[in-house]
Amino acid sequence: MKNILGRDVPDYIEGYGEVRQYKGALSEKEGAIKKNFTFKRVLPGDCKLYKDIEKLMDKLPLKDGMTVSFHHHLRNGDYILNLVMNEIAKRGYKDITIAASSIFPCHEPLVELMEKGIVTGLYAAYISGPVAEAISHGKLKNPVVMHTHGGRARIFESGDRKIDIAFLAAPTCDEYGNINGVEGKSACGALGYAHTDAELAETVVAITDNLVEYPNPIIEINQTLIDYVLVIDEIGNPKGIVSGTTQITKNPIGLKVASLTSKFIEASGYLKDGMSFQTGAGGISLAVAAELKDIMKRKEICGSFASGGITGYIVDMYKEGLFKALFDVQCFDLKAIESTRINKEHIRMSASMYANPNNKGAVVNKLDVVILGATEMDTNFNVNVTTGSNGVIMGGSGGHADTAAGSKLCIIVSQLVNARISVVKDKVTTVTTPGETVDVLVTERGIAINPLRTDLIERFKNSNLPIKTIEELRDIAKTLTGEEKEIKFEDKIVGVVEYRDGTIIDTLKMVK
Amino acid sequence: MKNILGRDVPDYIEGYGEVRQYKGALSEKEGAIKKNFTFKRVLPGDCKLYKDIEKLMDKLPLKDGMTVSFHHHLRNGDYILNLVMNEIAKRGYKDITIAASSIFPCHEPLVELMEKGIVTGLYAAYISGPVAEAISHGKLKNPVVMHTHGGRARIFESGDRKIDIAFLAAPTCDEYGNINGVEGKSACGALGYAHTDAELAETVVAITDNLVEYPNPIIEINQTLIDYVLVIDEIGNPKGIVSGTTQITKNPIGLKVASLTSKFIEASGYLKDGMSFQTGAGGISLAVAAELKDIMKRKEICGSFASGGITGYIVDMYKEGLFKALFDVQCFDLKAIESTRINKEHIRMSASMYANPNNKGAVVNKLDVVILGATEMDTNFNVNVTTGSNGVIMGGSGGHADTAAGSKLCIIVSQLVNARISVVKDKVTTVTTPGETVDVLVTERGIAINPLRTDLIERFKNSNLPIKTIEELRDIAKTLTGEEKEIKFEDKIVGVVEYRDGTIIDTLKMVK
Repeated sequence: MKNILGRDVPDYIEGYGEVRQYKGALSEKEGAIKKNFTFKRVLPGDCKLYKDIEKLMDKLPLKDGMTVSFHHHLRNGDYILNLVMNEIAKRGYKDITIAASSIFPCHEPLVELMEKGIVTGLYAAYISGPVAEAISHGKLKNPVVMHTHGGRARIFESGDRKIDIAFLAAPTCDEYGNINGVEGKSACGALGYAHTDAELAETVVAITDNLVEYPNPIIEINQTLIDYVLVIDEIGNPKGIVSGTTQITKNPIGLKVASLTSKFIEASGYLKDGMSFQTGAGGISLAVAAELKDIMKRKEICGSFASGGITGYIVDMYKEGLFKALFDVQCFDLKAIESTRINKEHIRMSASMYANPNNKGAVVNKLDVVILGATEMDTNFNVNVTTGSNGVIMGGSGGHADTAAGSKLCIIVSQLVNARISVVKDKVTTVTTPGETVDVLVTERGIAINPLRTDLIERFKNSNLPIKTIEELRDIAKTLTGEEKEIKFEDKIVGVVEYRDGTIIDTLKMVK
Repeated sequence: MKNILGRDVPDYIEGYGEVRQYKGALSEKEGAIKKNFTFKRVLPGDCKLYKDIEKLMDKLPLKDGMTVSFHHHLRNGDYILNLVMNEIAKRGYKDITIAASSIFPCHEPLVELMEKGIVTGLYAAYISGPVAEAISHGKLKNPVVMHTHGGRARIFESGDRKIDIAFLAAPTCDEYGNINGVEGKSACGALGYAHTDAELAETVVAITDNLVEYPNPIIEINQTLIDYVLVIDEIGNPKGIVSGTTQITKNPIGLKVASLTSKFIEASGYLKDGMSFQTGAGGISLAVAAELKDIMKRKEICGSFASGGITGYIVDMYKEGLFKALFDVQCFDLKAIESTRINKEHIRMSASMYANPNNKGAVVNKLDVVILGATEMDTNFNVNVTTGSNGVIMGGSGGHADTAAGSKLCIIVSQLVNARISVVKDKVTTVTTPGETVDVLVTERGIAINPLRTDLIERFKNSNLPIKTIEELRDIAKTLTGEEKEIKFEDKIVGVVEYRDGTIIDTLKMVK
């Protein structure tokens, strides 16, 4: 069974269930989405506050087969997931599904829980490290569901999947559950991915290491959604919370890609007053932002907003008046955290507001230009950011497929050849983002425009920029890399790539 | 059929349906509440913006029998309700139910729509002026449902009633529906009552007279909830938006009541660091706040929060450090509007966060002391603020029953006798707030403590304050007023008083 992208996706997958097949990025234009959830009454005088995790766990409606959720704003410094899962494991529960917005190397203890059948299911938008490797080697009982950031909000808002208990990392919290992420020793900034969990889980636990007097005046998630507040010593390791990834590349090839990208944007017609922009925290992406900043200053262009995970580079552009506002779902560094605390135009948003395709208009719908990376890309512009060159899971969409679908101009930036591996393939290992939503690939060897974008091809037909077809780029790369050998997989499906609308765009197979 | 308060409430009411009988303020302790709503997809490139009301109305799914909703932050200056209802009437629709958080004298044109059968149902927390009189005279086909502010959030969140189209007055808005009430020529401050409508209506229209560039950075209600944005010249009359009600009483009797009240609070044990407090915008209530302010300053007491509709008097107390934070569901004057725009501890909250009994903890649950008014009170401390001495509707609960139920100390302040009418009756015309949630009545002739509060009776047994029984106060009043004649009503039920949990606490009868 091949889907419209030529990917093998059966109509039924054991451990996942019936599959809705991908039919195109915007194929689901109509249809009301039902949002269902339950509340309990907290009466005047009821106390939500616990200072002993054992006592709280005894109070929670834990059970075999439940789904528990976590969000990843503490990134590779997160202590919460391991702490909670250890308590659940101690109590002998099994067959747990974890709905974590992302999984990092620090979550290695999950591997043992998977091997023991304590954890049998996982939903995440991004997975890296030992857990990813274990899944690719078949250690998780049910196929992992790799969704997008916006798709995650959709899954739970639509009731496709239910969260029994959500555990929220709360850098600052009062006794009644008013939470923010911008203050406290474990401050992480915006808490965009936690909103869905707080709104839709049957039971919601806020875990904090900075309990403040009621009412906590800066409220990102409020008391009406929180059942319990647990105080512990440390919710995370500050060094891991704010990772060191947000550096502009120093690699000359990367800088060349960035330079070509900024020139392409300048010539594209999108670089003008009111432009909105998003870029990731990768080295080339940040270099594009730096180039763009110079052009915008020189041309006196004032953009509308920048969005996404926000870095200090983007905050600087806002401070220099290059963007009127910032939409922030997660802060990547201390400067971004500080900014969202003090700047009123630095707007914190939920993942649903950021990228859910099923609400009345996510921020990605208003994006003009987005800069994204790729591990692989095929000649139909389908992008893989989920699996690496060895076929093992090493990432995931995050907001990749969401911003590609929402934006007017989606540019993939990549070295064409890196360590004798080409980014352009005849066939990608995994489709994360469908090619119909990707407009341009910029490499050091040339720029390829998606043939679907006849307007851009026309615009750039006499350009001085090195415009090539994607097939030309593929062939140039082949002269450098030779034929790459295809990765061999087992038949077993260890995961599905769920597109933002809930259809399955691809499957992940067990590596040999 | 008498309910537990001795009120005539049948189990079925024509035009309302099956009645859930009131069983006590906190009788519904358990039970999950289901929240249901539908979303549509707004795709990238879709335009929400309309500048012609006729064109927008042609686009809306208008139909006979629909429920349309409005919120009352523009108070007696509101142009939106009349504007929209005029368009609906022009198009020949009928049998419309209006769910307005409150109705003011400016909504007089509704009377004609009721007489013509265009409007046949009404939900509101407060109704004054010609519409109230028309309802009491039997001009609305179905019984009016008079709920509380928190109850309104519960009604729609629980799915008890569905809003087809919500029309939001949006003092500032961008083209995609990011709304605030703190800027623009029709600024009204917090928009607490509009959240429920935005979240739960099938279709949501924001109507603004201050369209700003996307993105509007101060967002109280966001784009993911808004279907359409309509720009018109004026959404309201600023003179009516900020009404002149927020003045401390100059009446010496009122001042005496306020003085006794503040002394009672001081002696009650509740006046201490961390105290939370709410008072209305009535003249005596504000005088209590002024007295309390002096005591708190003298004793160097710092309260936790003040909540409710916020006035400049309360803002001053916050600025002087007497409260750490303000929870604001609606601003009563310009100083409050300005404050919520600039002070980070002046927190805007939804009506659900304010007072919904069905969520995981409303702000009223954290209230220590609330000061409320009364039109009438019986010897069981049941309070009427819904109907006047002639039996005609002249108000409604608003947050009265919500704060009474949530607070630790609920004090009713009133002149005992005013214009030869006593506030204490053997039987109130209407029960708005059940006596079990009311603790104290303070009048110029003495203070009565609810016998249920044995702790307070004990505490005040040797007090110098004029503590009396409620029966004593009633008898004192009778010597001044003589026997009052009972109001005669027709048998026809023209309305129901819906308690915050959805049970019916009383009915309203047609006046003769």
